[in-house]
Amino acid sequence: MVDTKFFGSAGEFKLSDLLELAEISDANLSSQDASKLIENAQVLDVAKSGDISLAAHKSYTKALSSTNAGVVLVSAALADQVPTGSVAVICNEPHISYVKILKILFPAKRHRLAIFPIIPDAAEPIIESGVSIANGATIGSEAQIGQGTIIGPGAVIGPNVTIGRNCVIGANAIIECSLIGDNVLIAGGTVIGCDGFGLLDFGKSNVKIPQLGRTIIQSNVEIGSNCTIDRGALDDTIIGENSKIGGLVQIGHGSKIGRNCLIAPMAGLAGATILEDSVLMGANVGTVGHITMGEGSIAHPRASITKDWPAGSKIAGSPAQDIKDLWREYAAVRRLAKGKKK
Amino acid sequence: MVDTKFFGSAGEFKLSDLLELAEISDANLSSQDASKLIENAQVLDVAKSGDISLAAHKSYTKALSSTNAGVVLVSAALADQVPTGSVAVICNEPHISYVKILKILFPAKRHRLAIFPIIPDAAEPIIESGVSIANGATIGSEAQIGQGTIIGPGAVIGPNVTIGRNCVIGANAIIECSLIGDNVLIAGGTVIGCDGFGLLDFGKSNVKIPQLGRTIIQSNVEIGSNCTIDRGALDDTIIGENSKIGGLVQIGHGSKIGRNCLIAPMAGLAGATILEDSVLMGANVGTVGHITMGEGSIAHPRASITKDWPAGSKIAGSPAQDIKDLWREYAAVRRLAKGKKK
Amino acid sequence: MVDTKFFGSAGEFKLSDLLELAEISDANLSSQDASKLIENAQVLDVAKSGDISLAAHKSYTKALSSTNAGVVLVSAALADQVPTGSVAVICNEPHISYVKILKILFPAKRHRLAIFPIIPDAAEPIIESGVSIANGATIGSEAQIGQGTIIGPGAVIGPNVTIGRNCVIGANAIIECSLIGDNVLIAGGTVIGCDGFGLLDFGKSNVKIPQLGRTIIQSNVEIGSNCTIDRGALDDTIIGENSKIGGLVQIGHGSKIGRNCLIAPMAGLAGATILEDSVLMGANVGTVGHITMGEGSIAHPRASITKDWPAGSKIAGSPAQDIKDLWREYAAVRRLAKGKKK
Repeated sequence: MVDTKFFGSAGEFKLSDLLELAEISDANLSSQDASKLIENAQVLDVAKSGDISLAAHKSYTKALSSTNAGVVLVSAALADQVPTGSVAVICNEPHISYVKILKILFPAKRHRLAIFPIIPDAAEPIIESGVSIANGATIGSEAQIGQGTIIGPGAVIGPNVTIGRNCVIGANAIIECSLIGDNVLIAGGTVIGCDGFGLLDFGKSNVKIPQLGRTIIQSNVEIGSNCTIDRGALDDTIIGENSKIGGLVQIGHGSKIGRNCLIAPMAGLAGATILEDSVLMGANVGTVGHITMGEGSIAHPRASITKDWPAGSKIAGSPAQDIKDLWREYAAVRRLAKGKKK
Repeated sequence: MVDTKFFGSAGEFKLSDLLELAEISDANLSSQDASKLIENAQVLDVAKSGDISLAAHKSYTKALSSTNAGVVLVSAALADQVPTGSVAVICNEPHISYVKILKILFPAKRHRLAIFPIIPDAAEPIIESGVSIANGATIGSEAQIGQGTIIGPGAVIGPNVTIGRNCVIGANAIIECSLIGDNVLIAGGTVIGCDGFGLLDFGKSNVKIPQLGRTIIQSNVEIGSNCTIDRGALDDTIIGENSKIGGLVQIGHGSKIGRNCLIAPMAGLAGATILEDSVLMGANVGTVGHITMGEGSIAHPRASITKDWPAGSKIAGSPAQDIKDLWREYAAVRRLAKGKKK
Repeated sequence: MVDTKFFGSAGEFKLSDLLELAEISDANLSSQDASKLIENAQVLDVAKSGDISLAAHKSYTKALSSTNAGVVLVSAALADQVPTGSVAVICNEPHISYVKILKILFPAKRHRLAIFPIIPDAAEPIIESGVSIANGATIGSEAQIGQGTIIGPGAVIGPNVTIGRNCVIGANAIIECSLIGDNVLIAGGTVIGCDGFGLLDFGKSNVKIPQLGRTIIQSNVEIGSNCTIDRGALDDTIIGENSKIGGLVQIGHGSKIGRNCLIAPMAGLAGATILEDSVLMGANVGTVGHITMGEGSIAHPRASITKDWPAGSKIAGSPAQDIKDLWREYAAVRRLAKGKKK
């Protein structure tokens, strides 16, 4: 569900009106379905009756089967998998249509998504006693900051951001569309809650998918300097309690980092990467999106992770494989190359 | 041609004076050539009669053959390839001599190249109505900003930078020596127009090549957070219309990105990389400099691109190769390693 | 030796008191050893009699044999290697115990380590004449800045930082716990002296090792935009004279970069990497920590350096090997894959 604290809602729409505005025709709705009220958008597994959701291709099948979404935009191939409680709207290009609908439901100016608003709102920030705010810091309207927290010089806290107690927000750090727990350290120059890299129609129109989620950083997390932690597209990016992240790390939109994880400097997690608890990512590890690293698994530096790995895995290489298999391959290639030298 | 709006010129020089100041002797010029007037510097293919240019080794041969440069610093090996309309000045170390000449023609204080000038000039910025400038932003003298553009908190816009209409410059972003089109989004913490990494005499004096070009960002471009987009050394760095760039990306000096390209987070393009239109660079792709990716080509994440690739290529691996060849190699190595296990 | 200018000391402790506060029991000290005075902490090879040091496993053996440390926390396996002039304190988990002791000796608030202090101290910065400080810059108490230096807009100079003459500190750069020589250029958005990524008890408590060292940047160094150069944990991070570093580079804590080195953009050096003089690191090279690259050696772009390399080495690949060996392997694999095609 899009948090209307961060992304202003245009209010409720009758489904037929919404589809018309988004130029989706031939939906063949019953009059009852046509008058269904929609006011928000959500991913399938947590959507409710007032939400519109998306099922664009077969990877969505499982979540689709048990969704409670009021309406689902679907490809024709998935249409008969939509549960009876949900209205199916068949689209040729469900992703593109969903983007149009998101822009109608949340017509925030592009500006609002990118930077701190310029014209001060009426509402003042809500700052507990014992907060220190340094020279040149900017605090947005209705931002909340807890006791004992320090905001460094030049730091920028966006409107409605919530920061807990005893946190340190480093110099020139930027935090938008985010909820931050207690005792969190965000080092200098890091950007939290920035736009994810989500686009459609690659190489042609390069349509940007509205980035309407949040970044949630749980207590006792530390994040190094000059990182970029994207907010979610619809579901949130989450960094779990007591996880520690080095400098120059990029976390893609909708990633979920468990508790007590370590992510070394220069690692990059593409969108929707899931790390279970106590995962260790070495320096400059990369992941493709939509993969899961099981609890306690270890990715050695520079591993390129391309698929799910179970709990306790130890992987390395590009593409990453079990480290024992990798060393076996290295040895085989080395023998091969030496043989050819003769 | 160096843009004297960004890099103050010392004015016209007689060629003989210029060579003397740069300690280049034995040029054996005719008196007519010696009195030739030089006032700017430019790469061979666009240089004109008032420009001095460089042809340091054989990769310059083609451009040299048709140059209109008034003067060319050349290695002895290339001297007889200089067209009759241009004066050839033979140097033992043409690169080093060219650096000396650039420093004479454009004696800008090093400070001016690195940061926003501190002591305000007489000239005010030129700001259209309907521009919003946030808390703590700094706008340089004679910078021009178009209607509807928003400058985020703490952003720094260097002197003479031009920014079009309806742009968003994120918090704490820095823009120098650049021309920005309309409807461009530069996310927080990104640095546009910074010095390229151009040095000579590696490991000894590490002489820095003056970075006298610009960064040109065309309309509808979006660039993510904490990127570094270098300006050109002499010719400009260009990001083409509607291209989209993720966070923590580095674009080297003199690169030319076509229209509708996508460059995913953490990619790094070395100097003088050329992407034709609609190229897709996956996350953390790297290129060596001076290579071209043809139209519509795709580099998979982490590819290390070491040579030109034609339009429509699909490449991966390190060094990058056709993705079908790469998978064949992976399979061969895997079979080899398994065979050795027995 | 921790620089008490940056990290406030709690003063001298009797060894027995210090061990009790750190919950280290069963030390079986003689009464003379128990009353030994300790006031600082230092790595083995430079520790003196008032310092406490650490020897956690066999990689410390050589430095341990000649240490002048007053006290050494050791594992049982190393206890009999402690020189007679030093007091050995045997610990089950020497690293963890050492962290406890560091926190007692240097009880600086976490805040002080992360950002510029908010509440101005009594002491003013010490700024020579002819220094330019731009709009929105923040200068900490007792920071010293030399003649001709320019501090860019939004830059943050931490307390007690020393910057020499004719330096340029770019816009929104951050410098903490550091000593900077003359004629140094730090480009915009770069963070110098930030926390290293040093943690213990991985995946469980993720205890942070206090980062009590400094960053020392010698004269004529240039560092590109949006880099992160960590300060040392105990011993300093050092960037040697006339070395040049590109954008988006990460230098880990305690690394020592020699003179006249070049480190291209996006390279990452893990903690305690040693580069001797005139080393060239290509773009996006990575190192594991605790390795040495010999004088004049060259690592090609993207090399993953996993061990020491002697002077004059030319290496590439992942893991990095002699470039001739690497090309031989590539050729062998290519032949193998083609053979299998038949």
